[in-house]
Amino acid sequence: MTEVFETIASLRLRLETAGSVAFVPTMGALHDGHLALVRRAAELADTVVVSIFVNPLQFGEAEDLDRYPRELDADLELLPDDVLVFAPPVDELYPDGESGTRVTAGAVGSTFEGTSRPGHFDGMLTVVAKLLHIVRPEVVVFGQKDAQQVFLVRRMVRDLNVPVVVDVVETVRDADGLALSSRNRFLGTQERVAALALSRALAAAEASAGSRKDALLASHTLLNDESGVEVDYVELVDPETFLPVGDRYSGPVTAIVAARVGTTRLIDNRRFQLG
Amino acid sequence: MTEVFETIASLRLRLETAGSVAFVPTMGALHDGHLALVRRAAELADTVVVSIFVNPLQFGEAEDLDRYPRELDADLELLPDDVLVFAPPVDELYPDGESGTRVTAGAVGSTFEGTSRPGHFDGMLTVVAKLLHIVRPEVVVFGQKDAQQVFLVRRMVRDLNVPVVVDVVETVRDADGLALSSRNRFLGTQERVAALALSRALAAAEASAGSRKDALLASHTLLNDESGVEVDYVELVDPETFLPVGDRYSGPVTAIVAARVGTTRLIDNRRFQLG
Repeated sequence: MTEVFETIASLRLRLETAGSVAFVPTMGALHDGHLALVRRAAELADTVVVSIFVNPLQFGEAEDLDRYPRELDADLELLPDDVLVFAPPVDELYPDGESGTRVTAGAVGSTFEGTSRPGHFDGMLTVVAKLLHIVRPEVVVFGQKDAQQVFLVRRMVRDLNVPVVVDVVETVRDADGLALSSRNRFLGTQERVAALALSRALAAAEASAGSRKDALLASHTLLNDESGVEVDYVELVDPETFLPVGDRYSGPVTAIVAARVGTTRLIDNRRFQLG
Repeated sequence: MTEVFETIASLRLRLETAGSVAFVPTMGALHDGHLALVRRAAELADTVVVSIFVNPLQFGEAEDLDRYPRELDADLELLPDDVLVFAPPVDELYPDGESGTRVTAGAVGSTFEGTSRPGHFDGMLTVVAKLLHIVRPEVVVFGQKDAQQVFLVRRMVRDLNVPVVVDVVETVRDADGLALSSRNRFLGTQERVAALALSRALAAAEASAGSRKDALLASHTLLNDESGVEVDYVELVDPETFLPVGDRYSGPVTAIVAARVGTTRLIDNRRFQLG
């Protein structure tokens, strides 16, 4: 039977006898991508803590906070029995409301996902900092699916000297290439097919990876051919800076894409060598 | 012989065998006020760590970063031999420059000291968060002299669930009432006399503590009578919120004052019951 903790105090008490801890922060609505993070965490420490918390601070006014799936019982069935689950109510993490101290992401936090979702990364970093202070793990495990999140968490850990190792697990995909996401359940049958354009556009970029221009042209061509997909951005960024690479750049890149399929906003990314 | 550590790695290694730690963050230029914090810290843990770091992030463009006194040898002579001193160069704490992740203070960070010193509290909280992550003390000791700093550090610790106890030591004063400050050394003989107006204005507020208006009138009258003192603000704030109290408020207050004496900006505060 999975142990579930709703208060910081009860979790802390339990962790006193838990040995080393690997931590997987989630917003619940778990899928095989999350379970890959949990398996990785289990390799890294004595005890795995999974947090399940839909963080209001990282949702904008017009976003899908209310719509975001919450299904704790189903989540618990998916998790191994020996995982410790931290599933606090909102006022356990924000007893003084949402004003006050924040962790802010700096310039990269206002690009790409941050352009479409103002304040998203500040809210994300703030709750990750809180959870790291509460759980105090040796290692925290994130999925590469959220590439900009991974970049900003790594940078927070370095910039603020947070005593934790960040471990990143490759994106888990369905057999046809669609990156797993809690939001995929919102896709209708046609939309589910159209959504494949994201991963195919990234594959097309890699196949045309002579230069940034070639790669982006290949992606855009594929995405524009897919009706029902409204592109937000496609770009090639330097993995070290998350800044777009120049036209003459050659070296490692992360190709990132965001698009709306029906009412559902999806993201994906793929890493390869350019030039 | 006091042990001095210039790198995070060397300090961390030493702390592995240090037992419990009480931490006193300072910008150096130590005086008896700092030494009171160190004595308090020694009561609270096995090992005392004092950081000496003039944090560029909390100084504005037009401020006295270059002028701020740096005198490590003199500081070391003042400290007990068994204190561990962390005195990193700037690039040990900011290897990637000063952009990137910040801890931000929220609304109270833009009032009073934050009005006169935009970004000051964000810079202060950022370095305090970094130092807490590096030193990982059981308790961190601050002086009440910097009342708004104390308020915001306490709130950061609560808002971000930082695992540390914040301990606050009363302001140490010269015999005539002047609050000790590293900046007092900039005062000329006449200015040193004029600077007494700050602590006297706060005492006058307490002596007229029937209402906010009476208390502030008493303070302003005293400060205005002192030529050479340019008042920045005088206010009575609620210790729980650091917001100005209303005219009909009765209860605990912190009276705060900031003024320029010659070219030197000084602050002071005093706590008492209003009404």
